[in-house]
Amino acid sequence: MLYGAGLDDTTSFRPGTRFGPGAIRESSVGLEEFSPLARRSLTTLGFADFGDLEVVPGRLVESLGEIRRAARTILEAGGIPLLLGGEHLATLPAVQAVAERAPGLMVLHWDAHADLRDTFGGMALSHATVMRRVSEVVGPGNLVQVGIRSWVPEEWAYARHSGGFFPVEPAAAADAGEDEGEWPRLYPNFPAALDAALPLVAGRPVYVSIDIDVVDPSEAPGTGVPEPGGARAYEIWQGLAAIRRMGVQIAGADVVEVAPAYDPTGRTAVVAARIVRELVCLFAPFRRHDTER
Amino acid sequence: MLYGAGLDDTTSFRPGTRFGPGAIRESSVGLEEFSPLARRSLTTLGFADFGDLEVVPGRLVESLGEIRRAARTILEAGGIPLLLGGEHLATLPAVQAVAERAPGLMVLHWDAHADLRDTFGGMALSHATVMRRVSEVVGPGNLVQVGIRSWVPEEWAYARHSGGFFPVEPAAAADAGEDEGEWPRLYPNFPAALDAALPLVAGRPVYVSIDIDVVDPSEAPGTGVPEPGGARAYEIWQGLAAIRRMGVQIAGADVVEVAPAYDPTGRTAVVAARIVRELVCLFAPFRRHDTER
Amino acid sequence: MLYGAGLDDTTSFRPGTRFGPGAIRESSVGLEEFSPLARRSLTTLGFADFGDLEVVPGRLVESLGEIRRAARTILEAGGIPLLLGGEHLATLPAVQAVAERAPGLMVLHWDAHADLRDTFGGMALSHATVMRRVSEVVGPGNLVQVGIRSWVPEEWAYARHSGGFFPVEPAAAADAGEDEGEWPRLYPNFPAALDAALPLVAGRPVYVSIDIDVVDPSEAPGTGVPEPGGARAYEIWQGLAAIRRMGVQIAGADVVEVAPAYDPTGRTAVVAARIVRELVCLFAPFRRHDTER
Amino acid sequence: MLYGAGLDDTTSFRPGTRFGPGAIRESSVGLEEFSPLARRSLTTLGFADFGDLEVVPGRLVESLGEIRRAARTILEAGGIPLLLGGEHLATLPAVQAVAERAPGLMVLHWDAHADLRDTFGGMALSHATVMRRVSEVVGPGNLVQVGIRSWVPEEWAYARHSGGFFPVEPAAAADAGEDEGEWPRLYPNFPAALDAALPLVAGRPVYVSIDIDVVDPSEAPGTGVPEPGGARAYEIWQGLAAIRRMGVQIAGADVVEVAPAYDPTGRTAVVAARIVRELVCLFAPFRRHDTER
Amino acid sequence: MLYGAGLDDTTSFRPGTRFGPGAIRESSVGLEEFSPLARRSLTTLGFADFGDLEVVPGRLVESLGEIRRAARTILEAGGIPLLLGGEHLATLPAVQAVAERAPGLMVLHWDAHADLRDTFGGMALSHATVMRRVSEVVGPGNLVQVGIRSWVPEEWAYARHSGGFFPVEPAAAADAGEDEGEWPRLYPNFPAALDAALPLVAGRPVYVSIDIDVVDPSEAPGTGVPEPGGARAYEIWQGLAAIRRMGVQIAGADVVEVAPAYDPTGRTAVVAARIVRELVCLFAPFRRHDTER
Amino acid sequence: MLYGAGLDDTTSFRPGTRFGPGAIRESSVGLEEFSPLARRSLTTLGFADFGDLEVVPGRLVESLGEIRRAARTILEAGGIPLLLGGEHLATLPAVQAVAERAPGLMVLHWDAHADLRDTFGGMALSHATVMRRVSEVVGPGNLVQVGIRSWVPEEWAYARHSGGFFPVEPAAAADAGEDEGEWPRLYPNFPAALDAALPLVAGRPVYVSIDIDVVDPSEAPGTGVPEPGGARAYEIWQGLAAIRRMGVQIAGADVVEVAPAYDPTGRTAVVAARIVRELVCLFAPFRRHDTER
Repeated sequence: MLYGAGLDDTTSFRPGTRFGPGAIRESSVGLEEFSPLARRSLTTLGFADFGDLEVVPGRLVESLGEIRRAARTILEAGGIPLLLGGEHLATLPAVQAVAERAPGLMVLHWDAHADLRDTFGGMALSHATVMRRVSEVVGPGNLVQVGIRSWVPEEWAYARHSGGFFPVEPAAAADAGEDEGEWPRLYPNFPAALDAALPLVAGRPVYVSIDIDVVDPSEAPGTGVPEPGGARAYEIWQGLAAIRRMGVQIAGADVVEVAPAYDPTGRTAVVAARIVRELVCLFAPFRRHDTER
Repeated sequence: MLYGAGLDDTTSFRPGTRFGPGAIRESSVGLEEFSPLARRSLTTLGFADFGDLEVVPGRLVESLGEIRRAARTILEAGGIPLLLGGEHLATLPAVQAVAERAPGLMVLHWDAHADLRDTFGGMALSHATVMRRVSEVVGPGNLVQVGIRSWVPEEWAYARHSGGFFPVEPAAAADAGEDEGEWPRLYPNFPAALDAALPLVAGRPVYVSIDIDVVDPSEAPGTGVPEPGGARAYEIWQGLAAIRRMGVQIAGADVVEVAPAYDPTGRTAVVAARIVRELVCLFAPFRRHDTER
Repeated sequence: MLYGAGLDDTTSFRPGTRFGPGAIRESSVGLEEFSPLARRSLTTLGFADFGDLEVVPGRLVESLGEIRRAARTILEAGGIPLLLGGEHLATLPAVQAVAERAPGLMVLHWDAHADLRDTFGGMALSHATVMRRVSEVVGPGNLVQVGIRSWVPEEWAYARHSGGFFPVEPAAAADAGEDEGEWPRLYPNFPAALDAALPLVAGRPVYVSIDIDVVDPSEAPGTGVPEPGGARAYEIWQGLAAIRRMGVQIAGADVVEVAPAYDPTGRTAVVAARIVRELVCLFAPFRRHDTER
Repeated sequence: MLYGAGLDDTTSFRPGTRFGPGAIRESSVGLEEFSPLARRSLTTLGFADFGDLEVVPGRLVESLGEIRRAARTILEAGGIPLLLGGEHLATLPAVQAVAERAPGLMVLHWDAHADLRDTFGGMALSHATVMRRVSEVVGPGNLVQVGIRSWVPEEWAYARHSGGFFPVEPAAAADAGEDEGEWPRLYPNFPAALDAALPLVAGRPVYVSIDIDVVDPSEAPGTGVPEPGGARAYEIWQGLAAIRRMGVQIAGADVVEVAPAYDPTGRTAVVAARIVRELVCLFAPFRRHDTER
Repeated sequence: MLYGAGLDDTTSFRPGTRFGPGAIRESSVGLEEFSPLARRSLTTLGFADFGDLEVVPGRLVESLGEIRRAARTILEAGGIPLLLGGEHLATLPAVQAVAERAPGLMVLHWDAHADLRDTFGGMALSHATVMRRVSEVVGPGNLVQVGIRSWVPEEWAYARHSGGFFPVEPAAAADAGEDEGEWPRLYPNFPAALDAALPLVAGRPVYVSIDIDVVDPSEAPGTGVPEPGGARAYEIWQGLAAIRRMGVQIAGADVVEVAPAYDPTGRTAVVAARIVRELVCLFAPFRRHDTER
Repeated sequence: MLYGAGLDDTTSFRPGTRFGPGAIRESSVGLEEFSPLARRSLTTLGFADFGDLEVVPGRLVESLGEIRRAARTILEAGGIPLLLGGEHLATLPAVQAVAERAPGLMVLHWDAHADLRDTFGGMALSHATVMRRVSEVVGPGNLVQVGIRSWVPEEWAYARHSGGFFPVEPAAAADAGEDEGEWPRLYPNFPAALDAALPLVAGRPVYVSIDIDVVDPSEAPGTGVPEPGGARAYEIWQGLAAIRRMGVQIAGADVVEVAPAYDPTGRTAVVAARIVRELVCLFAPFRRHDTER
């Protein structure tokens, strides 16, 4: 079940994620409802839209509580919470709610940045610390990070013992493995990193958190901190299809950090809407039989 | 012979293709006249510019007639009509004119969308139905669609018996063929789909219709309905070179759906202008000997 | 040592490179100081910022002298001059200064355009002639051009005897070599061209000149003359790493032709800033030991 | 009662009015609900939102019918139809519906352009002919045009005998009256023209049609055909207040020709939303007593 | 003495004031240093630039403390604190610092919005409550608000007994005074409101707080909550000159709420820079004699 | 007779005037051909378009020569040269050509900036010195400057003895005259300054040079150095009408400094096109009788 939260409180560079949920919804108008990848149509599936939460800028703690409550409500109704952000910190309360009901939850984190600092600008709650906090909720060994291409040694020092850090440095594969341990192995692209990571989540309940900046800025420029060298957009939905083929059912998901003001062409929101469509078409239960053509 | 038609009547999402022909012409200033791919220069070739037709928004039927007449005039003068759009519906009268003179005409359609609906919003003439109408002109078996990545089951139901539907789902090749028939085979990228499709047009007169949204929105964002997961721009002109290498001579062509207002960087029109340059350099007859350096 | 020069005098199509140095500096705020590729951090390295030179539009000769003086000052202080442009003509005085101190200097030129005309618009000093002038400074055999994808026969006529012309036509490799001599061999992508070119600079002092338009317009739209079919941004820094692995030490470098006004998303300057970070992290000497995490 | 119709079929220059209703609704979020001018608050008034009609581009006749039906439905429910456009042609069916119920209806037309041609580009139904058609519905003597600053002799030839043509040429008042008859009197600004016009509508049912381009492009740039020398935005709502003070009750109204794509600052939609707020606050009946503070 | 604080924490609609100080500084490059209005040049005056404070988004309380400390430091050095915002809440700590040293301080507030709510979205500290908090610091009778054109009854209920509320409704003067008391008198423009207000501050130390949205969106569109009907930009510096002519010396000032991302033309920052230039040229002490020409 | 010259060589802040002539021509499409102000239509008048000169960036001296030649050609054909710029330096050769044929030529200069420096950035030929050079051509006493609102003491020192300096400081009139001599009298708005200036040109041949930045940035933001506090656009054409009413015939004119890249709304070029329309409609001779309606 979709729910939106335009959280925009700790964005440190370019703000505007508060307009993300609206932009994603609007740009979905230009997309077909049928997914050739999933071979299913939104119109035949059981999903609902919870609408956007009212989050007031400056009221961080209250907003996080609001998101947690909404996720719990969706879960209680038997739905899978699918969050449209909003800044990445919105993931924390969503994961908290899902973890309460899904023991052994794994978090699969797709992002350009590791977000593993302990504090940032003096804050423990920040878009730059959110995955540190998430790892404290589910346990460091249950966080699997894929596609990271910007991180600092402090983050690697924290991540190296968990075994769930699959960073990407495009085309770097040849010389990547040599000093593993001292430095992480760098994968040449997102699919290679995902291939290495997916076995870790097999057979487990999984929460998928997708920061839109995991996608290359050429395809998704509308975000606060663009980082060159990212995944192709289609690698994201192919990755979701790979999860599905493994038989894994997701327990929750989010698509965050869309900041439409930095993309006058509007294609970032289109990419996010397409990710959402594939999430629903791949993982939602049937509502009625989809043999209609 | 170039001719432009800024048709912009049935665009259902974001309008503005009326400014396409002008933008393509203007951005050609930044391009060299020499094509390294074709190893020929525009200055040595025989082609002319018919200018832009005056199409009045709201007078769809008259505008289609205008385009048909212009294409006929060019053909009567011995030229190859090369249309700058305008919305995709402009292709219909151009194909009608070419088909009158080229029996057995094949239409090679490169696009993100199948445009095969029977009606759209209650209209039989629409950018979303144009290829259905085109297939009625040349015969369903003479329409070959390459690179489609957004379509609905109704369109597949129509296309499946013609054998000319070569859709793309990037990176999806591995699991594509399994239920062929029930669902179309999905090709992993534009060149793979084109390789499979080209044998169908060998030895036949060919009209090539290129919707700029066949190119990925990262390279061509200035279009009405951007769809992620598209071809690289160079795959388009490499595809044209592949047609040329087969010995196929094109009987007509178009580049449509450029809407410059959605691309403040101007690179969509540059991509379109480059496609036009390669079309001319690959297929135009010599005017004088091109050994000059 | 960084120095900027917003030269913007002979830009023939879309101006605005004068704002390049400022934009690159500002967008570096959103980047981490640690380079996963180089596994070094800016904070541990010895480099300084010389600031931006005051170049007055319209005073071309004086501005070129100013750049030459600044490069000499940096060299005299034992630094490696790293220029932020500005239009490409700024490379000429920088190379002049470096060549005075580095006998046998090779210039490694990464660009979409060959810039090898003898005159352009009647001018011997122009962004379109700069590499002709550079080749006269270092000797035609010491100019190595990689990634060029737009050029005219006059340029090939000049370049063909130097053996340093490695143009790219994406995906064209299959049929490229056939008429070598008559026409240059076309490489299918930037890494392939670079692989072929690098042996020429082994063991020599090298100046690397990077026109941002060598990168594809999808990743770096903010430039005066965008040309489709370019390198991926990461291929640039992987190329720098390849130079480093060969044991080559650069004697000078530049990143030019960033025109931020044509990229409202700001990612062109981010790409340039990332190139600068990798240049520094790969080639700057240590200031203190970088074992800190 | 609000209803939107993003009609965008006959726009002859820059299209995009289809996104007008949405943009006006969204930008109303930044406005207070209290009107200091009317000293009433939206929250205390009786009005409703009928939502946006689905108008399919290219189906002009059907879309006009849709608008006519919606206006009739609102009128039958006792509401005052307040249309958000959409191109100006949308006014025609709205006036038709209101005229059916309000004998002697006057149309008060505020615009930069007279829209009085008999045909435009061969079409009788066009944004450039709409007021000719409207005058045929209500009778030429019942159309009062205020603020027009772009017109052609053909339009004056039609308008001169009706006495309802109050064009503006800013600051032109001094020499305006001399050849009245031969040429129309030109008023120096919108309020002066309105002062002269309002007596004509006193005691009559009035439909107010506001083309946003009556406002100066400096305040409302987001429209298809910007014309310099327009009214200040506040002169529009002061004009509405003047109508109210005369005791006139409006029978219908519209705000049309907002094309948000041409205004990246978003203020055109804010101006339109403010006009709508004042329309409602000035003319809507009380729902409950507004003494609350 | 200039100091900047890109506070951007409680902005409720469109964020981005964090980039205000930088944009104002950059656009000052295009302005002359000589003020024809003040007939003095920046180069002859004693003023300094304290630089921009590092305010981390999400750390509101710490950021306010940082601003308060900076203002105190400037005051202790004998300077007049001139703050570049940032959101309007930044005014609160600046006024606190100035009020400590200037007994009887009046705050002269120029804005489109009254900012007098007691709480907003549940927060006592917000851009929408800042003047309520300021009035609690200096005393309700010492707050004088000029140019307000958007407010709610709750704000008037608070302001009406202080006598310092001078709202504007453009051109509304004629019928404004009638129900004074029940509703505030509405002034027809900013100069008229200022004329009425200035006697209240004569002979008193004055802090001037200028929200850039007091200026009309046509001249200053780059702000979070544009409100039509504002002052002309020159009325702001003429207003400052009027203060100067009264012999009033300002004790502190700020220019806030510039959000450059919403103004691609850059003129909002130019207007703000011009206001800053006039503030300095009108109120700074001489450093050396300004007879130079 | 229209002629364009996209000179863009010495622009010191934001470049792009090279695209001015094209933008003005394109935006004229949205304007009617009839001028209500002049009561004449372009279609009935004798004027021609000479097209745009090819001016190569970086070849300043050659470009100035080119403009001079074009102006002479037009004059020899009996036409009135009407230049579309391009940067303001383009005025110099145009005035030189006109002065050769019109003894006693007055130059009427409307601008935000005085452009009277002797050198700028070390250059004698610059957009910031052009009126100094022009005054040397026609004699200092024959230059009349109206609407200037940004100038430095050096410029006043030069201008004060010529009696042709009519600067504007909006609303400053009350206290302007007191120290005339020491400082120039400041006029409260453009019409007041023009009223004072026009008697100086009565009975003389006049060249009118209009820098688009004389208009307020709210109406004409697309220019290199926007300066707040400018004229309303209509005051420009009313000023032209005032010249016409005096019986003065212009001997040449220009509209310069339109830089369309800084105005995504396109209205700056519309304002310039409107100025051009009024110039032609007011001053061009009849071609045939304009009684047609």
